[in-house]
Amino acid sequence: MKNILIIGAGKSSSSLIKFLIDKSDAENLRILIGDLSTKNATKIINNHKNAKAIIFDVFNEQQRETEIEKSDLVISMLPARFHLEVAKSCIKFKKHLVTASYISKEIKALDKAAKENGLVFMNEIGLDPGLDHMSAMQILDRIREKNAKMLLFESFCGGLVAPESDTNLWNYKFTWNPRNVVLAGQGGAAMFIQESTYKYIPYHKLFRRTEFLKVDNQKFEAYANRDSLKYRSVYGLDEIPTMYRGTIRKVGFSRAWNIFVQLGMTDDSYTIENSENMSYRDFVNLFLAYSPSDSVELKLRSYLKIDQDDIMWEKLIELDLFNPKKKIEISNATPAQALQKILEDSWTLQENDKDMIVMQHLFGFEIDGKKHQIESSLIVEGENQTYTAMAKTVGLPMAIAALNILNGRIKTPGVQIPISKEVYEPILNELENYGIKFTEKEVPYLGYNPNHVIG
Amino acid sequence: MKNILIIGAGKSSSSLIKFLIDKSDAENLRILIGDLSTKNATKIINNHKNAKAIIFDVFNEQQRETEIEKSDLVISMLPARFHLEVAKSCIKFKKHLVTASYISKEIKALDKAAKENGLVFMNEIGLDPGLDHMSAMQILDRIREKNAKMLLFESFCGGLVAPESDTNLWNYKFTWNPRNVVLAGQGGAAMFIQESTYKYIPYHKLFRRTEFLKVDNQKFEAYANRDSLKYRSVYGLDEIPTMYRGTIRKVGFSRAWNIFVQLGMTDDSYTIENSENMSYRDFVNLFLAYSPSDSVELKLRSYLKIDQDDIMWEKLIELDLFNPKKKIEISNATPAQALQKILEDSWTLQENDKDMIVMQHLFGFEIDGKKHQIESSLIVEGENQTYTAMAKTVGLPMAIAALNILNGRIKTPGVQIPISKEVYEPILNELENYGIKFTEKEVPYLGYNPNHVIG
Repeated sequence: MKNILIIGAGKSSSSLIKFLIDKSDAENLRILIGDLSTKNATKIINNHKNAKAIIFDVFNEQQRETEIEKSDLVISMLPARFHLEVAKSCIKFKKHLVTASYISKEIKALDKAAKENGLVFMNEIGLDPGLDHMSAMQILDRIREKNAKMLLFESFCGGLVAPESDTNLWNYKFTWNPRNVVLAGQGGAAMFIQESTYKYIPYHKLFRRTEFLKVDNQKFEAYANRDSLKYRSVYGLDEIPTMYRGTIRKVGFSRAWNIFVQLGMTDDSYTIENSENMSYRDFVNLFLAYSPSDSVELKLRSYLKIDQDDIMWEKLIELDLFNPKKKIEISNATPAQALQKILEDSWTLQENDKDMIVMQHLFGFEIDGKKHQIESSLIVEGENQTYTAMAKTVGLPMAIAALNILNGRIKTPGVQIPISKEVYEPILNELENYGIKFTEKEVPYLGYNPNHVIG
Repeated sequence: MKNILIIGAGKSSSSLIKFLIDKSDAENLRILIGDLSTKNATKIINNHKNAKAIIFDVFNEQQRETEIEKSDLVISMLPARFHLEVAKSCIKFKKHLVTASYISKEIKALDKAAKENGLVFMNEIGLDPGLDHMSAMQILDRIREKNAKMLLFESFCGGLVAPESDTNLWNYKFTWNPRNVVLAGQGGAAMFIQESTYKYIPYHKLFRRTEFLKVDNQKFEAYANRDSLKYRSVYGLDEIPTMYRGTIRKVGFSRAWNIFVQLGMTDDSYTIENSENMSYRDFVNLFLAYSPSDSVELKLRSYLKIDQDDIMWEKLIELDLFNPKKKIEISNATPAQALQKILEDSWTLQENDKDMIVMQHLFGFEIDGKKHQIESSLIVEGENQTYTAMAKTVGLPMAIAALNILNGRIKTPGVQIPISKEVYEPILNELENYGIKFTEKEVPYLGYNPNHVIG
């Protein structure tokens, strides 16, 4: 019998839990799910005999150690900053660990201890990071086996609303943490490399320097991620002349979002006095020059040079941004928090809404003087509000990795991310059974596409 | 005999030292000037019998304590972060202290000890902060004596080049720390209040939301300071509906400077690989999209929508910004450091150049239902590269304050800034003998001027 301890049972853990329960008889699994509330987990478990939910506080050392000691493998779904205590206990009691988070310095420092104890500490094995690593490395390894010279790697990912639920002018709803969406791109210039030249985009220009892409005949746009070069060495692409990573949105989103950036509404560094009783209209006016007579609307139009027939304007109206009666209702809100509140009025998923994950990689390479390009794309739609595309693409790679570690298919110990064939190959194969399957095609070599031509 | 210890003898201390030397016979002063190099001080002292320069290291505790113990008053011209050690030694040996820096939390914490020992710790008594406090408080106190209701306070200050040395298209040269000029406005949204409404300007819009002003028939513009409200309570203006502080530039500077901001060239948060061998042209290209054919010039024009006959373009050409041969020559430079290097080629004061300080306050108020406005302005030109307007307006208030503390004209002990009549009145009077004299006039009440009308 193999005992799995899952710590944290938020919305994104539904597919993970369901997968393991469904496999529990065949694989002889016992699943214990710990969280501060058992509500979500109890619903998913639905009285299954092989799973149990308990109230669990990761900072209760005794409880943490007791439950980790009883398990064979731990899956931490907690926010990244809470993993360290779990990881240390896993070392102490010699248990494997799986997380979807970026590897912190502190977790990285446990590499030696994990190896000495033969433990697999698998990280970055959700969607992004996770599925992006695996699907990219599978093709990169294959291309490199042919002695190809890599010319280009571009990788895009986005969490969006499914076409049938795409009912607003922004073509966007919150399918993940809204706060991360409002703050996206902040904290420093975006950096990437094009034809061997470094390129930097400051935050206030990020949403005006988008790239276009086409996935399964749908048009999308993408804005650059903070650091596209982070995985250059990790992927073995130190010499690649073009490398870019971006976040996918429906076409037109970024240009309108830029209004909030330009106004200063996404700033999270200061709080607004009396924000609780401030109307949406007053909030907008904070960022516009004083006038004894001109309207907030005209001041905004004039300041940001928005034509009267520009669709961006309709997008603002749809959000009810100029409403003088609706209140922010958050005390000492930062501009970003106030903006989030306004957006949540309009962008919260409704009962029957479905989400959608879109991912695309472009690989450019040269073999025997001939240039090639491969395009690999994925679209996953959610089933409902429980088994969302996000929950599936984050949770299933984690769950399969956990099984494979317990089954001994993943053997190499240490603190790692899923970039070796031993790890990604069986996971990607299994994911296809769950509708997570990349479509790959050879396309004419386009290189980096400065004119935004969509083929 | 009164012993004054001046710590730090950089360029800005020339007028301070000269003033005290000139008064030394009449006031019976002995002046000791300590710095890591005696070069600057020796030149100013010019063998005067009452002054001496020594090699001095503020972090050499024994030397610091020995010299502070022998003095009656210490003037610290060091960067603000080095004041604390000096201040603690001043408490230990019961000596007065004068600095031109903002009061840090740590210095503020010495208030009780200073008061208990009857010591005056005078801070923010240079130009800005310093002369701005004193000149504003003098008029504010006078207005309030008439039972007026304050409606508006706007205050502007700038360090510029004198008209006879104003020889470039930017109408600007570095008359103070160039690094501060490049980084000006960063670190958070600018905040002020207009007609009882808070207003916030994000950094990337700061140089497009300038105000105009006219001083002594010359037109200027100003961009908002980080926190205009910092002195609202300190000045007793808690109820004032409009308060704004700004930095003065010649008209047209900010609009052109905004190009650098928009490109991301003022960013100081990351370093550029191989910046040492990078040409000015390559540096510009870092911030523009890749193109296999288009020129850096056309990409920049198109990106920032600069018309071909726009004077802004001539300003960039004047800086030689597109030169493919001139190198940045700084390794691991941040964009801000690289930009500073390029600007220093063009904006460094030449041998015979003179600088200029411009300050203006606007006071709006109501007495018996009638609205009034007072405009108080100052222009100071430098004599030469030693006795610059900056050195005079920073150093003379400090020097006079030091004398007045030693003479017992400034009595009130404690950590303070120059906002009481006891402090500002004799200093402002004495400054007039040195050509630092505000011109005051009643003007029609304009209130906050949304249409940028210049009277």
